[in-house]
Amino acid sequence: MIIIGEKINSTVRSVADAIKEGNFQYIVDLARKQYSAGAHYIDVNAGVFVDEEAEILKRMVESIQSEIDAPLSIDSPRPEVIGEVMKIYRGKRAIFNSVIFEEGILKRALPVIKEYNMKVVALLMDDVGIPEDPEKRLEIAIRLMDMFAKNGIAEEDIFLDPMVQPVSVDSRYVGVALETIKLIRKEFSKVNIICGLSNISFGLPKRRWVNRAFLPIAIYFGLNSCIADPLDDVLMKLVYASEVLSGQDEFCMEYITKAREGLLD
Amino acid sequence: MIIIGEKINSTVRSVADAIKEGNFQYIVDLARKQYSAGAHYIDVNAGVFVDEEAEILKRMVESIQSEIDAPLSIDSPRPEVIGEVMKIYRGKRAIFNSVIFEEGILKRALPVIKEYNMKVVALLMDDVGIPEDPEKRLEIAIRLMDMFAKNGIAEEDIFLDPMVQPVSVDSRYVGVALETIKLIRKEFSKVNIICGLSNISFGLPKRRWVNRAFLPIAIYFGLNSCIADPLDDVLMKLVYASEVLSGQDEFCMEYITKAREGLLD
Repeated sequence: MIIIGEKINSTVRSVADAIKEGNFQYIVDLARKQYSAGAHYIDVNAGVFVDEEAEILKRMVESIQSEIDAPLSIDSPRPEVIGEVMKIYRGKRAIFNSVIFEEGILKRALPVIKEYNMKVVALLMDDVGIPEDPEKRLEIAIRLMDMFAKNGIAEEDIFLDPMVQPVSVDSRYVGVALETIKLIRKEFSKVNIICGLSNISFGLPKRRWVNRAFLPIAIYFGLNSCIADPLDDVLMKLVYASEVLSGQDEFCMEYITKAREGLLD
Repeated sequence: MIIIGEKINSTVRSVADAIKEGNFQYIVDLARKQYSAGAHYIDVNAGVFVDEEAEILKRMVESIQSEIDAPLSIDSPRPEVIGEVMKIYRGKRAIFNSVIFEEGILKRALPVIKEYNMKVVALLMDDVGIPEDPEKRLEIAIRLMDMFAKNGIAEEDIFLDPMVQPVSVDSRYVGVALETIKLIRKEFSKVNIICGLSNISFGLPKRRWVNRAFLPIAIYFGLNSCIADPLDDVLMKLVYASEVLSGQDEFCMEYITKAREGLLD
């Protein structure tokens, strides 16, 4: 499982406050904690500060990279913002988070992804919206993968997001997301399948338990990455156990090692 | 989800010790704790005391029923032992735990089940053993259900056990168990599907995490009952969340109520 730490997000009050106060040490600390807890990438999002988005992201990236060597996921719907941020990015390969299947977006995103040798998260939606059924989402996946291949982007550098929607809105959304994961995994064995975990529990109280229960199921269906809270200790242990159950951890060796290291206490 | 509390089991050292010392208050306390924690039935097992099994089970049942009104699951491979215990059983309908598809066993079990109006756990195995593939297990399920129907036992009083086997022995066992659950659920909409949860993690360290990760997946595939530890707080919360995700909790009402009651804190 590839975990992308979600906590540096400007929609979270404490993060927004830290940004307003110019307290970028708070951001660095959040990055450090997530990296230590096992996140493979740290997401950075400044979306609520529309006019200053690129500037703030650059300060976030510079602050974090001056202290920590974690690779980052640069989170913006605007390709030109990500391009601007990448001018000052250094170190391990970053993730472009994210594109959708929309001509205008892709035309602006692809040059950035290629210039900076980025990995990319692609949402299975287009300019019309999110298709209702898994087969239609798979169609978008196929078109995206084709287009990435033509641009020389390797399958293992792509993260497809099946678009998890809230179970509180419609309980059938669970099945739609899982079926989409299954279809993608069947079609593409090496692509990464990612989700924004907390989307499943939107609108419910005590959301963490719904996120935690959903993740083992999604991993069993073929998910191998998620944007989530790596500081959620229960969640991380469930991830390690889910890798055993989904055959991602051959002979349970990783699990046994983690148990020895005390990571499952 | 119908939870059967597993803790009063003579293979557990502390339980065996309490029995040897004649400390049946210990057994009663274990029953009370499990019932308070949300177990719907309390399993009682005295299997390691072969010669005194019936006597000990009777003392367990009498001790528990003198203080608590929880229905019990009488756990023995020997129908005559369960028949003996039922002579002194009173209160809410008990579970006969368990039968397999084997003529001799069934011939002795069915009269007991009928005489005492019991529910029944049936393991999907026969005198040859546990079939390797899900379709063969379904065949046993169909034969068992047919035989129960002929004996006037209602579908909703039957608990079929797909036979979960340890992932540490063969990682394919996970898929076999889940596929079996799926096939049974497709064939019989009202039957209960149960498993002994901890079987999945046999042979691994820190087994609880594997049990906890497996349960949401199994519930999603159609499991609606398990023999497990209701004192495992994390597990119970994952059960409530899994009911939401599997459509067993319409409009998430139970989950929201549990959140209000503080059961998800």
